[in-house]
Amino acid sequence: MTFTLERLAELTNSEFKGDGKCSLDGVASLGEASEGEISFVSNPKYKKLLASSKASVIILSSALAEDYIGNVLVNDDPYLTFAKIVSIFYEKTELTSSIHTRSTIDKSATLNKRVNIAANVVIDSDVIIEEGVTIGAGCFIGEGSILKKNVQLHPNVTLYKDTQIGANSIIHSGSVIGSDGFGYAPQKDKSWYKILQIGNVIIGSDVEIGASTTIDRAALGSTIIGNGVKLDNQIQIAHNVKIGEYSIIAGATNIAGSTEIGKACQIGGAVAISGHLQIADHVIITGRSMVMKSIKEAGVYSSGVATEENKKWRRNAARFRQLDEMAKTIKRLERKLEEREKGGLS
Amino acid sequence: MTFTLERLAELTNSEFKGDGKCSLDGVASLGEASEGEISFVSNPKYKKLLASSKASVIILSSALAEDYIGNVLVNDDPYLTFAKIVSIFYEKTELTSSIHTRSTIDKSATLNKRVNIAANVVIDSDVIIEEGVTIGAGCFIGEGSILKKNVQLHPNVTLYKDTQIGANSIIHSGSVIGSDGFGYAPQKDKSWYKILQIGNVIIGSDVEIGASTTIDRAALGSTIIGNGVKLDNQIQIAHNVKIGEYSIIAGATNIAGSTEIGKACQIGGAVAISGHLQIADHVIITGRSMVMKSIKEAGVYSSGVATEENKKWRRNAARFRQLDEMAKTIKRLERKLEEREKGGLS
Amino acid sequence: MTFTLERLAELTNSEFKGDGKCSLDGVASLGEASEGEISFVSNPKYKKLLASSKASVIILSSALAEDYIGNVLVNDDPYLTFAKIVSIFYEKTELTSSIHTRSTIDKSATLNKRVNIAANVVIDSDVIIEEGVTIGAGCFIGEGSILKKNVQLHPNVTLYKDTQIGANSIIHSGSVIGSDGFGYAPQKDKSWYKILQIGNVIIGSDVEIGASTTIDRAALGSTIIGNGVKLDNQIQIAHNVKIGEYSIIAGATNIAGSTEIGKACQIGGAVAISGHLQIADHVIITGRSMVMKSIKEAGVYSSGVATEENKKWRRNAARFRQLDEMAKTIKRLERKLEEREKGGLS
Repeated sequence: MTFTLERLAELTNSEFKGDGKCSLDGVASLGEASEGEISFVSNPKYKKLLASSKASVIILSSALAEDYIGNVLVNDDPYLTFAKIVSIFYEKTELTSSIHTRSTIDKSATLNKRVNIAANVVIDSDVIIEEGVTIGAGCFIGEGSILKKNVQLHPNVTLYKDTQIGANSIIHSGSVIGSDGFGYAPQKDKSWYKILQIGNVIIGSDVEIGASTTIDRAALGSTIIGNGVKLDNQIQIAHNVKIGEYSIIAGATNIAGSTEIGKACQIGGAVAISGHLQIADHVIITGRSMVMKSIKEAGVYSSGVATEENKKWRRNAARFRQLDEMAKTIKRLERKLEEREKGGLS
Repeated sequence: MTFTLERLAELTNSEFKGDGKCSLDGVASLGEASEGEISFVSNPKYKKLLASSKASVIILSSALAEDYIGNVLVNDDPYLTFAKIVSIFYEKTELTSSIHTRSTIDKSATLNKRVNIAANVVIDSDVIIEEGVTIGAGCFIGEGSILKKNVQLHPNVTLYKDTQIGANSIIHSGSVIGSDGFGYAPQKDKSWYKILQIGNVIIGSDVEIGASTTIDRAALGSTIIGNGVKLDNQIQIAHNVKIGEYSIIAGATNIAGSTEIGKACQIGGAVAISGHLQIADHVIITGRSMVMKSIKEAGVYSSGVATEENKKWRRNAARFRQLDEMAKTIKRLERKLEEREKGGLS
Repeated sequence: MTFTLERLAELTNSEFKGDGKCSLDGVASLGEASEGEISFVSNPKYKKLLASSKASVIILSSALAEDYIGNVLVNDDPYLTFAKIVSIFYEKTELTSSIHTRSTIDKSATLNKRVNIAANVVIDSDVIIEEGVTIGAGCFIGEGSILKKNVQLHPNVTLYKDTQIGANSIIHSGSVIGSDGFGYAPQKDKSWYKILQIGNVIIGSDVEIGASTTIDRAALGSTIIGNGVKLDNQIQIAHNVKIGEYSIIAGATNIAGSTEIGKACQIGGAVAISGHLQIADHVIITGRSMVMKSIKEAGVYSSGVATEENKKWRRNAARFRQLDEMAKTIKRLERKLEEREKGGLS
């Protein structure tokens, strides 16, 4: 499919500079674009790369557009505009409907007529599948689960019973939603008595969940993922966690039981958050942080120390274990000096 | 199903206070319980919530029960008693038997008559499946594996060949047991020569393994998970690791090759434990710790520094790299002051 | 299968000492070997265990072989030689061919005659499968993917569309290759606009990928895993990452978007690497490190502080947050002392 610059400006509510009839057939990064492709610059530091790009059109803010001679799609949010243009070029919109003969669907399940169910899908009793849902090969949908309009499950996703997924949500392969929370009561003989996890998982609409992410069902009640939340790959979400709408969490982060994350939070990758905490709205937590206390105010929070050359690290890390001692010595020295000064001894 | 307070007291070897005929039909948390439900308070700090709870019965220790006027199930381990009552209400005990026509079972496999095998299960040659085993949709059971009585595999679990799983153990979806250990010998041309991993994984009885946990087969011999061990989601256990009975490990922890964890250890989430270490019995390791040396005595061990406001963190983290230098300066200052004192100079 | 010592020496280009006719039927570790088995010592510190081993033959360097009386396979790389002998004993080399009747293969896919496709495999349109490929039960191969000669997919692997896998590469169960990269443009209402990920994943030859590892497709272009790379379990590789040939990465490490890892790097387990970094060739990063800046020179890099007894840790970790203050105090004290000295006051 091809679009003219003029047409793309119209579709994205943008202005343009240069040849509006210029024909475009795809998108590419600034460095890899060739003729007929559209690219973008969002960060002014890449401005210097503009001259050498072979892209036929570049999406720029009006400020950056001023200095550039070539064809420009002008929009003050070039990144979002680029995202929309990628959708214009590549999003599939045809609604097909098919139920593979090798799927296994319980008689008590209710399926809309316009759904796509691939081979080896297993749908258990009393499941409800709404219009436009796509379920990839090998997915398992547990008893009583509800998949609202246009939900898309990539292949090999597992939903335990009673999972609810809101409209337009996407779940990537290998993810497991609704597995038992990790709850045991200790017994005198050191063995652990399993606490049956009788809650479920409720996922809002417009949520995306990456590959091999796990979300445990609640012990009692529900683990809740709010509308518009985006979760990356290999995230672990324990039972009874609640994540507020529009929060976004990068890969390999794990959140322990009953913690509540506010709205519109941004949490980096490989973060570990302890259980039973409250994280306020609009909190940003940088990658690899370790969160052990509730965070009550919006802001940026961090922990961790980055790599250094191994020999230096060995010395510094050894000193970490003397930190308390060092601090006390400093106080002692300070006091000594002060005493002398006071005493006019020096 | 409903139970009277009297009957629940009997079934859990507890006392009761109040109306023994009070009829109960489920459990709920203190805040969410409504009439007909039973809840519990284990931690005295939640005592103040008792007054406002709508639960018909509350499980309390005898100490807490004294001050409470409503119906009480009295037991000095309220948490364990609650766990048992959840089982009484919700545990399914019927033993069904069925082998789905869409399962693929090698002729050489030996299956007890009372087993449940779901659709799309593949059972390879010489597998042995004992009485009461349930295998969820899409599981793969490799050649020569043995599943003892009442083992339960949730959907989409993968067992490589020669895996052994003890009685009553549960494995959640997405977990992979018996994948090759990570072993290569370096070659002169920088390439890596794969060391075939010819061992296996042996899992004890009453073990529970969470979703998307991976346990590698041994290079030689066996990777061993002891009886009664509980593993959460997304744990990575490398080849030749041994975990002692009743140890419990929270989500996203990883244990490198050949490390041995003692009995009844409690290991938090997102912990990283190096290879070839020995961890003693009854060791507690808090979440996100980094364990680089063997731990020879029972006790609580920790590492890591928690989040702080980003600007402060930047300053402190930068200083970490000067720690060794700081320590040396402190020593120098100390010496100077001491010398002066000795010399009576001040 | 049995081999004589003489024959194994011949096959591995080694010398031998002792009874060349000694017959061997398997390998074992030094401590567990019994008669008829061959073992090895690579690290001189295990030399003392030689005397008590019941192995019939031991692989030793010429230096270690001097002091040992028993049968020896002499090679100056005992570890690599051991690896090769494991292959000699245990590697299956028969090439079978079969396509299970319960696999679902699109008509437009091109399959070589000599391939193994297990039950419940789904192969989408336009896939190309070359000679000697083995695909385990429940794998999904997305549209347009290419599996070159002798690729082996263990059960329950998911390949999204357009994935390319080089000859002789192995992927373990639960891994997901080609899932969408994590890319969204923020919108004014706090919602996130999904950036379609239109790139793919290209995996070189002789690569091994562990269980439950995830590799995202590129936003634009390709995520690239070089020839001979070895990835352990539960690794997360974000979109547009590039990993140079022969690099090796241990379990649970995660690499954020667009980072490029050089050739022959060795990265420990549970490492977190930020996005958009460049890591030079031959860099070694120890386990649990946090990499926040590009590394421009070969060498060993580390971060993190290991566990200590919980009470001590509490004190030291609390001091970490005073580090900047401590450093300033030290400087102040230093200045004071210097001033006095200069002033001849003391």
